[in-house]
Amino acid sequence: MPEKPIVAVTMGDAAGIGPEIIAKAFAKSNIKKICRPIVIGDSEAVRQGIKIAGVGPMDVNPIKDVKEAKYNPNFIDVLDLDNIDLSKVKSGQINVEAGRASVEYVLKAIDLAMKKKIDAITTAPINKFAMYKAGYNYEGHTEILADKTKTKDYAMIFLSDSLWLALVTTHIALKHVPKHVTKEKILSTIKIVDSLVKTLRLKKAKIAVAGLNPHAGENGLFGKEEIREIKPAIEEAKKLGIKVEGPISPDAVFYLANAGMYDVVVAMYHDQGLIPFKLLSFNKSVNVTVGLPIVRTSVDHGTGYDIVGKGWANPGSLIEAIKVATLLAERK
Amino acid sequence: MPEKPIVAVTMGDAAGIGPEIIAKAFAKSNIKKICRPIVIGDSEAVRQGIKIAGVGPMDVNPIKDVKEAKYNPNFIDVLDLDNIDLSKVKSGQINVEAGRASVEYVLKAIDLAMKKKIDAITTAPINKFAMYKAGYNYEGHTEILADKTKTKDYAMIFLSDSLWLALVTTHIALKHVPKHVTKEKILSTIKIVDSLVKTLRLKKAKIAVAGLNPHAGENGLFGKEEIREIKPAIEEAKKLGIKVEGPISPDAVFYLANAGMYDVVVAMYHDQGLIPFKLLSFNKSVNVTVGLPIVRTSVDHGTGYDIVGKGWANPGSLIEAIKVATLLAERK
Repeated sequence: MPEKPIVAVTMGDAAGIGPEIIAKAFAKSNIKKICRPIVIGDSEAVRQGIKIAGVGPMDVNPIKDVKEAKYNPNFIDVLDLDNIDLSKVKSGQINVEAGRASVEYVLKAIDLAMKKKIDAITTAPINKFAMYKAGYNYEGHTEILADKTKTKDYAMIFLSDSLWLALVTTHIALKHVPKHVTKEKILSTIKIVDSLVKTLRLKKAKIAVAGLNPHAGENGLFGKEEIREIKPAIEEAKKLGIKVEGPISPDAVFYLANAGMYDVVVAMYHDQGLIPFKLLSFNKSVNVTVGLPIVRTSVDHGTGYDIVGKGWANPGSLIEAIKVATLLAERK
Repeated sequence: MPEKPIVAVTMGDAAGIGPEIIAKAFAKSNIKKICRPIVIGDSEAVRQGIKIAGVGPMDVNPIKDVKEAKYNPNFIDVLDLDNIDLSKVKSGQINVEAGRASVEYVLKAIDLAMKKKIDAITTAPINKFAMYKAGYNYEGHTEILADKTKTKDYAMIFLSDSLWLALVTTHIALKHVPKHVTKEKILSTIKIVDSLVKTLRLKKAKIAVAGLNPHAGENGLFGKEEIREIKPAIEEAKKLGIKVEGPISPDAVFYLANAGMYDVVVAMYHDQGLIPFKLLSFNKSVNVTVGLPIVRTSVDHGTGYDIVGKGWANPGSLIEAIKVATLLAERK
């Protein structure tokens, strides 16, 4: 039997709940039974996270190389980049130090994954504004990963017990959405979704594609994108043997998927997909970036500045994200 | 004590499930205890509806004037417009006769309501394409009502146990949405919503206004409509003493409202509101057109051509729509 995959958890923003949920996930879950988890971050921040989480017997094992990791159940192996002065970081506040360091953890993880020194990356939350302040002009984690691995065709997929969701477009103003909903992008998303379902569920996915307009355009009455872009993409995917239906009226497709008629919904824009997804799966889901040469999963929440230090942060999404990363690494 | 309100139910498309759900609603619910309901439609079609519904002891009392209605529990008073040849109408199919007749029922209802011969209108579903074929170029019921009552400021409000929802824009292509999201229209919607909640719940509403863009634009990063239109509308509404918050991130606001933090959500476009609404409230809700000089409620579903004649149609939404119409007529 091959060795268990090494999953690197990037610590995220030091002023946020990342260290706390990492401490809880490493202490209380059974992730060490399925993978070899390490943290890429700061030893002292994780130590504070252990204190906040109240999982006291745990301690940190600071390392400088992945090979030094011991995977001892009572220790959290932290690949310490020694790149942050914690005395300058105030919990729950945007901080340029924390922003810079949080990106550096991710860059290190990408480098290690590309060199196959780790098998998967799971990211704890970064703060977008702290990142901008530090001079990194990315939309978020996903764009850093795509850029550094030179990936063009990728998709964010959101997984929960209630719904699996892929987005054709993400963080753009609503008025720019229609021109980004192209046949090419839709087809590439359908293909990526199909491959993910095959990997995770070991079966052919039944994919539903949402329309862009009310009632999926009602035969061109309220918008032509369904006729010009979405239908042709679906027809081409069908020719490739993919089980896909649509375009389905946006106000019906999530109801139908939730009722079990489909495995995944391909949504055309951020809120079309994330409004129903968060309603059904708040804080119980995992994000996967599919299409990259490396495995990457993520938590479904932000830095939680408003609850830092209180011990309330929920590690559920992080634990699930590590589990999905493990599975993907094993089946890659 | 004043007499109970007269609620006229328009029969909708004769080829659809309208007659069946009317028969079920009149036979099985307690609506006759709270109002004086009549149907505006076709006697023979309602008779067929009674047969399909399997509520056999019921029969039709055809009338030519509202005053002839008897409100006998064993009869459905049908104001028969004698405007349709049923032998030409095939169940479950688009038909120009049925389309024309369905609009004429609504026109008659509006006329009677404006003359105060009835107190409220509840509409059963019409088929949009049958209506177009008959030469009526309306988007739907709501636009007929607004046109014939010369109403400019009105809003569709969707009511269910889980969520109350108002839309700033309705049946338009997504690419046209941003330019229709104006301060003026948002403010008018907020005011209309506030007045409806006061009438129905006898208290001040706590209103949430959704943003237009992902993360409500994230301070202008993904779209400026929040800053230019939505915030100013909210500020002005607050000055009028209305309890209103926003713009709230679209992917969070419905979750928060469903958790009880708000009484109503004002959504910027059709699918933003109706995706979560239908997920939470499918076939259990009522639509109200507020802002008209007359009371109008509606079912939340279409003509159900696929299930006509099978006896499966659910009268739940129609019953609720008649109840809400009654309450609004009493408190008008």
